[in-house]
Amino acid sequence: MCPPELPLPPGQKQRLEAHSAPGPLAGQCPQLCGGQQSCAFKGTSVTPMSSEDPEVQRGYIRLPGFWKMLTVAVCMAFLGCLQAQELQGHVSIILLGATGDLAKKYLWQGLFQLYLDEAAKGPSFSFHGAALTPTEQGQEVMAKVLESLSCPKDVAPGHCANLKDQFQRLSQYRQLNTTEDYETLSKDIEARVQREGLQEAGRIFYFSVPPFAYADIARSINSSCRPGPGAWLRVVLEKPFGHDLPSAQQLAAELGSVFQEEEMYRVDHYLGKQALAQILPFRDQNRKALEGLWNRHHVERVEIIVKETVDAKGRTSFYEEYGVIRDILQNHLTEILTLVAMELPHNVSSSQAVLQHKLQAFQALRGLRRSSAVVGQYQAYSQQVRSELHKPSSFHSRTPTFAGVLIHMDNLRWEGVPFLLMSGKALDERVGYVRVLFKNRAYCAQSEERWAGAQSRCLPQQIVFHIGHGALGSPAVLVSRNLFRPTLPSSSWKEVEGRPELRLFGLPLSDYYAYSPVREQDAYSTLISHIFHGRKDSFITTENLLASWLFWTPLLDSLAHETPRLYPGGSENGHLLDFEFSGSQLAFSLQQAEQLVPGPGAAPMPSDFQVLTATYRDSPLVAAWPEELIVKLADDIEATAANAVRRFGQFHLALSGGSSPVALFQQLATGHYSFPWAHTHLWLVDERCVPLWDPESNFQGLQTHLLQHVRVPYYNVHPMPVHLHQRLCAEEDQGAQVYAEEISALVTNGSFDLVLLGMGTDGHTASLFPQSPTGLDGEPLVVLTESPIGPHHRMSLSLPLINRARKVVVLVMGRLKREITMLVSRVGHEPKKWPISGVLPDSGQLVWYMDYEAFLG
Amino acid sequence: MCPPELPLPPGQKQRLEAHSAPGPLAGQCPQLCGGQQSCAFKGTSVTPMSSEDPEVQRGYIRLPGFWKMLTVAVCMAFLGCLQAQELQGHVSIILLGATGDLAKKYLWQGLFQLYLDEAAKGPSFSFHGAALTPTEQGQEVMAKVLESLSCPKDVAPGHCANLKDQFQRLSQYRQLNTTEDYETLSKDIEARVQREGLQEAGRIFYFSVPPFAYADIARSINSSCRPGPGAWLRVVLEKPFGHDLPSAQQLAAELGSVFQEEEMYRVDHYLGKQALAQILPFRDQNRKALEGLWNRHHVERVEIIVKETVDAKGRTSFYEEYGVIRDILQNHLTEILTLVAMELPHNVSSSQAVLQHKLQAFQALRGLRRSSAVVGQYQAYSQQVRSELHKPSSFHSRTPTFAGVLIHMDNLRWEGVPFLLMSGKALDERVGYVRVLFKNRAYCAQSEERWAGAQSRCLPQQIVFHIGHGALGSPAVLVSRNLFRPTLPSSSWKEVEGRPELRLFGLPLSDYYAYSPVREQDAYSTLISHIFHGRKDSFITTENLLASWLFWTPLLDSLAHETPRLYPGGSENGHLLDFEFSGSQLAFSLQQAEQLVPGPGAAPMPSDFQVLTATYRDSPLVAAWPEELIVKLADDIEATAANAVRRFGQFHLALSGGSSPVALFQQLATGHYSFPWAHTHLWLVDERCVPLWDPESNFQGLQTHLLQHVRVPYYNVHPMPVHLHQRLCAEEDQGAQVYAEEISALVTNGSFDLVLLGMGTDGHTASLFPQSPTGLDGEPLVVLTESPIGPHHRMSLSLPLINRARKVVVLVMGRLKREITMLVSRVGHEPKKWPISGVLPDSGQLVWYMDYEAFLG
Repeated sequence: MCPPELPLPPGQKQRLEAHSAPGPLAGQCPQLCGGQQSCAFKGTSVTPMSSEDPEVQRGYIRLPGFWKMLTVAVCMAFLGCLQAQELQGHVSIILLGATGDLAKKYLWQGLFQLYLDEAAKGPSFSFHGAALTPTEQGQEVMAKVLESLSCPKDVAPGHCANLKDQFQRLSQYRQLNTTEDYETLSKDIEARVQREGLQEAGRIFYFSVPPFAYADIARSINSSCRPGPGAWLRVVLEKPFGHDLPSAQQLAAELGSVFQEEEMYRVDHYLGKQALAQILPFRDQNRKALEGLWNRHHVERVEIIVKETVDAKGRTSFYEEYGVIRDILQNHLTEILTLVAMELPHNVSSSQAVLQHKLQAFQALRGLRRSSAVVGQYQAYSQQVRSELHKPSSFHSRTPTFAGVLIHMDNLRWEGVPFLLMSGKALDERVGYVRVLFKNRAYCAQSEERWAGAQSRCLPQQIVFHIGHGALGSPAVLVSRNLFRPTLPSSSWKEVEGRPELRLFGLPLSDYYAYSPVREQDAYSTLISHIFHGRKDSFITTENLLASWLFWTPLLDSLAHETPRLYPGGSENGHLLDFEFSGSQLAFSLQQAEQLVPGPGAAPMPSDFQVLTATYRDSPLVAAWPEELIVKLADDIEATAANAVRRFGQFHLALSGGSSPVALFQQLATGHYSFPWAHTHLWLVDERCVPLWDPESNFQGLQTHLLQHVRVPYYNVHPMPVHLHQRLCAEEDQGAQVYAEEISALVTNGSFDLVLLGMGTDGHTASLFPQSPTGLDGEPLVVLTESPIGPHHRMSLSLPLINRARKVVVLVMGRLKREITMLVSRVGHEPKKWPISGVLPDSGQLVWYMDYEAFLG
Repeated sequence: MCPPELPLPPGQKQRLEAHSAPGPLAGQCPQLCGGQQSCAFKGTSVTPMSSEDPEVQRGYIRLPGFWKMLTVAVCMAFLGCLQAQELQGHVSIILLGATGDLAKKYLWQGLFQLYLDEAAKGPSFSFHGAALTPTEQGQEVMAKVLESLSCPKDVAPGHCANLKDQFQRLSQYRQLNTTEDYETLSKDIEARVQREGLQEAGRIFYFSVPPFAYADIARSINSSCRPGPGAWLRVVLEKPFGHDLPSAQQLAAELGSVFQEEEMYRVDHYLGKQALAQILPFRDQNRKALEGLWNRHHVERVEIIVKETVDAKGRTSFYEEYGVIRDILQNHLTEILTLVAMELPHNVSSSQAVLQHKLQAFQALRGLRRSSAVVGQYQAYSQQVRSELHKPSSFHSRTPTFAGVLIHMDNLRWEGVPFLLMSGKALDERVGYVRVLFKNRAYCAQSEERWAGAQSRCLPQQIVFHIGHGALGSPAVLVSRNLFRPTLPSSSWKEVEGRPELRLFGLPLSDYYAYSPVREQDAYSTLISHIFHGRKDSFITTENLLASWLFWTPLLDSLAHETPRLYPGGSENGHLLDFEFSGSQLAFSLQQAEQLVPGPGAAPMPSDFQVLTATYRDSPLVAAWPEELIVKLADDIEATAANAVRRFGQFHLALSGGSSPVALFQQLATGHYSFPWAHTHLWLVDERCVPLWDPESNFQGLQTHLLQHVRVPYYNVHPMPVHLHQRLCAEEDQGAQVYAEEISALVTNGSFDLVLLGMGTDGHTASLFPQSPTGLDGEPLVVLTESPIGPHHRMSLSLPLINRARKVVVLVMGRLKREITMLVSRVGHEPKKWPISGVLPDSGQLVWYMDYEAFLG
């Protein structure tokens, strides 16, 4: 419900309309009131007349005249307008690190652009360049920077000189070092505001300084340079925001102790890049067309790529500490990922909704493992580090300068869709893009040469957000013509003309609906404008930041001691850095050339014979490296299963929990297509007395790694009844007896076809621990036991029941099992001391499966 | 365990080795004994010395000399060898329909080839051309055919004339009409055998006659022309083998009453085509490389395509009755499908194993629906039919001449992989192929123009069995070079040379390892050789035939009244026949041009408003066409779910069984990515007293159509306990009470968040039937009830419990519900008569969802 357009006096109307986006108060109001959700931004409902709210206050300052007042009054009733409301009063912008590279290259230009865009609309500005550099020297540098500023193309040179002159007069350098300096700054600002008869609207502190300086500056601002009541404070922070989760948490805690969350604007300048800033609006404006497409049923893969040709030369002191994952993937590419993958809020102009949905996307990310990534390093890098950081000639860096990472999302929209993130230095081209490739679901009945260009549904269908550079050379949004004609805001995006033959992502440009910005704009100019307008969704909240580090830190830790693959750099990389995935594993496509080949006469390594068979405790032993061991065990289980189903029509399999079986479950889930799951009954060997949905439950592991991937009928799954009548393993619920009865009813003679056991370092097996008063012998088939480590209460099959099985397999893996493996090899039948020694099937078969680490140490 | 190679006298050994595949007894024996499975072919264990078994007998006939006897004796212990044993004695081949087209074109040539290949190895032959044609006339035609036979390329013309002469002398025409004719034939054969001092090995009757003649001929052969004891009978049948499942069953029963299954050889000549006959050997010989690839994780799609440029002109009397699906898809393409999809037997040379695995592949086929196919008809077809079959000018045929079909397999290997079958007449090219396209799992770090040809894993990866014709012009096996180098038998396949630029399936020929046959051979020659050698795996067993018709008949029935899309024919078809799939639905990519658009002033059709809201029994009613109704209901359920999870942390949903909810389940499973399944509890409204795994169980429908596709945690699924202690709904097991307790424990106040009900034509809802003594009022929350139709015993939520729900939805669909819908709209609260009228939530909301057929009739 919007107010009707207001009749304005001709002059007034004209003046208001002359302003461009985000537009002046009155001119924009009717359009902006459409979306109700924009009313509730910042997570709190805004009381229109509250003098505490700076946004509201600003509405009242310096808005003279009846028409403006009326407009404000009407719009106040429609809170959606508040966010876009015109900023009035005085704004001080303090650029910390004003003489640094970033400031010189982008920030001053961004501030100048802000001045050009906004000053005419009402607010008064002052720009304070600040640094540790002494005043005179700093002034000199700053003067040079300001002199080099450029105006937009459509501004005449003479006018430009005037504008620059005005901007220079509003800008001054000052040394900011001590808390007193900040006090002085604050007083100067107050004096100026008072002198000019203004009210203060707010202060922006832009931290273009190294992170180690953050804490001191933050404290100084907080103690000595906050604006008075009614005016806002915004601090703008540049990455790095930490080095891993702990350091990011620490930094966040430090900043959080002095600034409110809403005062902080953490910059990821990629969010200001035009093609990326368009992702959400594009998804919103093409909602109808994308609705059915933007999901696992239609998306083949998503590629998020930033390739650089430059290397790290001259920057190794930074780079050596960070590497490509921290430099590009953890921040830029992850932000892009969330923009693509997040559920689309109903109202994409609601910062709060966007940030919340982004956070949900983080929560759906499947954890990364070492095998989720490939890393490389250009060959010259180590030498550059040695030379720049004065390292000895023996020094070799492990810092990756190239990384490819495979990310999966565990939600229904994206399950199974690979998100490939890749970035590197010293590559063959400079280009950045997000490519959403759709599955080919068409069959074209004509022979290929008759597929008429963009008409054919058999040609690739994709949507590309082209960040820049590459063959195209500019930001762009590309949509395959055989997909749909997209809607883009015609005020800011225009169709690309010319170069129809240019090939992009396997198709000529003419096969795309292709759009580029009407006016290319630097990311920093965009973001500075967003800071000024308080659009928080273009920045990284503390929650998002920590979620991202939480996601990346385990991978970074596991890569810390890996040696990246060396690559020559440039086009000579050939196929060396190509990678491919299989399931959730990523690997380089080419084998490493320098792989060692044992010379003649070399002692055979265990890998040479791969699977070794021997005996252990008078039973067969299969030993191998972990991967081969699991493959062999899975094969053997399938053979046993097939045999049981052939003979008896069903296969009763009792499984243990723990970590070793996880790899087995995964192998069974992904590598065994003819496994007779439909005729398999799954039982638990033991269970912790926790609800089935508890992460500690053995059943959970089974569900996550096996049940969700195969088709075992619901009624063939037999979790242990550890949670009857909403109680955990209560004696009076007789859960153990219930399970024993279920076994007796379904399993002939209580003889499982196969029981899979593990062995603990204390010699326990199932949940039968040394000295257990139950389960080691005697009557009950299923027992309640106590574990020395929590959760203490357990339910377990008893040894007598286990020993009734047709086949018992004990899987032992890992170096930690070495000692108990040696010990148990020597002991007799002493189940009280070592329960595992009591595993001795009455008439069935016992087979040990050990990896070399457990077997050989 | 094979016998060691036997020492043979030099001459003997040489002679035996000179024979080629399937090879002579002694030479082949040691290799063939490797696979145990080949021992038990034909499904019955073979007693080595049984004189009943013709295969064994053949081993004894005319095998003189000590070495041969020894060899036989040794091999007898290894039954696997028997199959490949050399055929000796006299073989009579009777070609029925000897003057027909098929015989002229292929069969005589095939018989000649058989003679050339086999005669030198031992057996004596006689060839009997037979037909209804009077003797003299038939002899004349046959003489011409035999004169036109050709020798293989490597036979010198003079020698060829000799060979043809020999063959002609062994061949004679005879009229076969009455049973007496068959008796005479039999006597003539016996006389000849006796005259020449031979034993009779067997008789082959090749039915190259229309199917209506089968029964008579079969009876005559059975009664009057079977060979004597110890010799075998083989009858070779040509399609069509029926028109649908009932006719195929009838024909099979007729043939089965006179012939043993092992006597029948049903020809699908595609199984003799070289590229297709190579599929299984290829899969076998490249087992290692394909093992990890030949599954849903790696295969993107499989295309099985036969395109023809010719139309049906001159053959419409046949074609009009059959159409493309019966002509090509039901037989040829389905056979190919099974070769590609079946689990690979350990021993692919075991006919029995191959046939059994083929049958299993049939069993895994997901049922076809109308939406699984698109059909077309070339424009000139109806006119051709009118002209050839003398139909009136008003006649329009519905016979499809083009069909595309999407097939899915419900097994772990192929789940989700689309198999696209397509064939048509009057298309733009003549070509046939099977294309297995693999998923692209690589990312290539270099820009596209640097992908070096076949090296790049980013280029398509595919395996093609090229049947023939097309740009390549010959049979071939193609494997992308970026996949692996395949192994093919070098004796019969050679690498293709030349034409590296020829583009095939998106790649130049040079990007493939490409193989073509050393010697191109006609399919019939191959098959006739297989018949002679008793290789049944190249033929269609009765079981396979009926499985295929079982699969295809429902689609054929549902297409019977559909009008195919017309297409102009040839390259003018443009994109008109392109089709694409979404989920399990197939549709033409282009909308039909002649789609009707209602003119101005036309009365609005219900589809114009799509979803109509009204009231019914004083509660809200949503009415729509079925598809929109389901979409709307699924949306509403998701909204309710999201709301419940937001408010209470969980969503308790009680679902009814039956057919209407199936579409809803599918919609929820495939269209609702943010449905909060992880927080949803699923309950049953009612259940039949059958085990949960019974196809009649309501739970089964839920499991098949919903649970297998979403991730509801195991412990959030609550089937009704109708099967406690291995009994069905026994009063003493108190299952209803158990369920009521479970509800009370987990569902606050027993108020489900949503209960989905249906309505029966008798006004029942849940399993609460008219006059039910329980469940309509009073205390128990869950009750046992009786249904007037079976299964009679039911468990059901009671009306009082249903009425506690926050929301109750009644879904009513289909024309059959029209009457009860009208009736119930007028009755008051009379649950004893119409239980549905008792649905009136205490404080919750009731909403009716009806499709227009139920609502408007």
